[in-house]
Amino acid sequence: MIITEQSLRTFTQNIFLAMGCSLEHAILSADVLVMSDLRGIDSHGVARLIGYVRLWEKGRVNTKPNISIVHQTPTTATVDGDAGLGLVVAPFAMKLAIEKAETYGSGWVAVRNSNHFGIAGYHALMAVEKDMIGFAMTNASPLVAPTFSNERMLGTNPMCYAFPAGKFPPLIVDMATSAAANGKLEIAQRLGKQVPDGWIQDANGANTTDPHSLKTGGSLLPLGSDREHGSHKGFGLSATVDILSAVLSGANYGPWVPPFVSFLEPSENPVGLGIGHFVGAMRVDGFRPADEFKNHMDNWITRFKEATVIEPDQKVVIPGEPELAAQSARKKDGIPLVEAVVNDLNGLADRFGLDRL
Amino acid sequence: MIITEQSLRTFTQNIFLAMGCSLEHAILSADVLVMSDLRGIDSHGVARLIGYVRLWEKGRVNTKPNISIVHQTPTTATVDGDAGLGLVVAPFAMKLAIEKAETYGSGWVAVRNSNHFGIAGYHALMAVEKDMIGFAMTNASPLVAPTFSNERMLGTNPMCYAFPAGKFPPLIVDMATSAAANGKLEIAQRLGKQVPDGWIQDANGANTTDPHSLKTGGSLLPLGSDREHGSHKGFGLSATVDILSAVLSGANYGPWVPPFVSFLEPSENPVGLGIGHFVGAMRVDGFRPADEFKNHMDNWITRFKEATVIEPDQKVVIPGEPELAAQSARKKDGIPLVEAVVNDLNGLADRFGLDRL
Repeated sequence: MIITEQSLRTFTQNIFLAMGCSLEHAILSADVLVMSDLRGIDSHGVARLIGYVRLWEKGRVNTKPNISIVHQTPTTATVDGDAGLGLVVAPFAMKLAIEKAETYGSGWVAVRNSNHFGIAGYHALMAVEKDMIGFAMTNASPLVAPTFSNERMLGTNPMCYAFPAGKFPPLIVDMATSAAANGKLEIAQRLGKQVPDGWIQDANGANTTDPHSLKTGGSLLPLGSDREHGSHKGFGLSATVDILSAVLSGANYGPWVPPFVSFLEPSENPVGLGIGHFVGAMRVDGFRPADEFKNHMDNWITRFKEATVIEPDQKVVIPGEPELAAQSARKKDGIPLVEAVVNDLNGLADRFGLDRL
Repeated sequence: MIITEQSLRTFTQNIFLAMGCSLEHAILSADVLVMSDLRGIDSHGVARLIGYVRLWEKGRVNTKPNISIVHQTPTTATVDGDAGLGLVVAPFAMKLAIEKAETYGSGWVAVRNSNHFGIAGYHALMAVEKDMIGFAMTNASPLVAPTFSNERMLGTNPMCYAFPAGKFPPLIVDMATSAAANGKLEIAQRLGKQVPDGWIQDANGANTTDPHSLKTGGSLLPLGSDREHGSHKGFGLSATVDILSAVLSGANYGPWVPPFVSFLEPSENPVGLGIGHFVGAMRVDGFRPADEFKNHMDNWITRFKEATVIEPDQKVVIPGEPELAAQSARKKDGIPLVEAVVNDLNGLADRFGLDRL
């Protein structure tokens, strides 16, 4: 099924309104999810809507949160999301970071007591629109084992860095710190396909290519896959995201992070509140005139696009380029939704007495 | 040969003094290099001293630099290193970042016109001593090819994040963004050994395990090794380091970064000044009371140390642990130097009319 951006946006807003969100929060939450679908990151878009609804039904998402600043200096702050949707809590935090950066050059906000915030790129790009460099990261339910362990201790813990450019669109590095994102595993599970060596291990910590082993105690591997290829670096990056997002803010970290799926219960002995994010913004002209920076960004991008290639038909891909290409195509041609997602969304429409897709 | 920390420190200071450094700069430069040797990162310690001397002989290192702040806001700044040793320029920048953080909560300094700064961890740890989170990164001579390319476009571009803990030592993630650090390749070259698949490619971009292929147009691979295992993420991280260190500061970036080896000439058409760094500091108590943070860091570390293991004799390694173990041992037992390094150092002593090791 192909659906227009506007139809998907309206449908999604209506679900959030039905959950009790304010109009402002419903519009914002839909914007975050639909941007993910537009950019081709289907795993993080409206496919997750049913997950948010189920958490709300369990009382684990507060759709009328009182988001507050609990601690701050001129350029740092900790925000409590009051168990709200990360889709609205993270933009609140990023707005605060941007305000601080406008006055002092940079702003950094750690967030506790939140839920999943969608794609990190959405939040980082808020800073780019103001000629700032944007940072966004979040911890997530434990699925990844540290190097040498077979225990799920970390989420896929994404980190995002976004930089404004001049004639080119922003350069955006938005990546899970695991070897493969969980969404890729889910696709392989649905299609009954094997995955490459180095993505996952089974419950005993042995190499496997069977994506279903994740359902029987297996775990994702950190970026680098094994010690010899640098999995300790992927573990280190994931640890960094976990510490900045949660140890710094007072959220849950490591194996205590509450699961996104509603059928698994959160820890009975939490070490903090909800899940955590960390966002930041730095004014480009805090370092050099913005035009100079953007001209050099264009030169950087041009030179990397011209790097010699191994296969004649595969050029170097600038970080963020594929997502931008998807966005252009889908804004024009509509957003494809797979049947399972359409069924989930129509089920939600029925549940709330709304029009089906 | 085993040498005491103090003897190596004195020897190294004397070389820097003979190059024309001030006493303050000689002590600081020696401190950075010897800390690397103490921590077991032999590739970045006194083994590099001859490289700095050769660059100085070529007029590419200024041992009497006028390091200056060329642009700033309350929490951001750009520093020009005046072609000085990165070993003194980076600590200058980090001190400035810490001062800004003391007043405003955070401080961020981009550096241009510098040279190699030793181990990133040295600079990040300066912040940790003040109960701050420390960040340090640098770009470096091009050795790494982006995904899909066989052209050396990026350095091994390390990034470091350092966090204070309570009863445990600081947690330090200090990593090259390539699959393997160049130092590991150099060791394999010396020993005539093959390296694992996924570390390097030959001049045509084909897989190879021959470390000498780096001398015939081959290149290092980004963390992740190949597209299927996330090399685009390693490339993205390396790009982030390059942009923050050099596009933001006005240093050279990508393939324009001047080579560390003195027998290769810098580009005739540079896009900036020297190489670039980026450092930062954030006060922990800008987010939550420092004691609370440290207690949770201890809990994080304890829990990860207790993660279930795959092999009974190999526990999870906390980032920074191996370097700390080396430091304890070498402070007590002395620092081992291989013959090639001893010969280089004694050659330098002869050249400057100083006592041999």
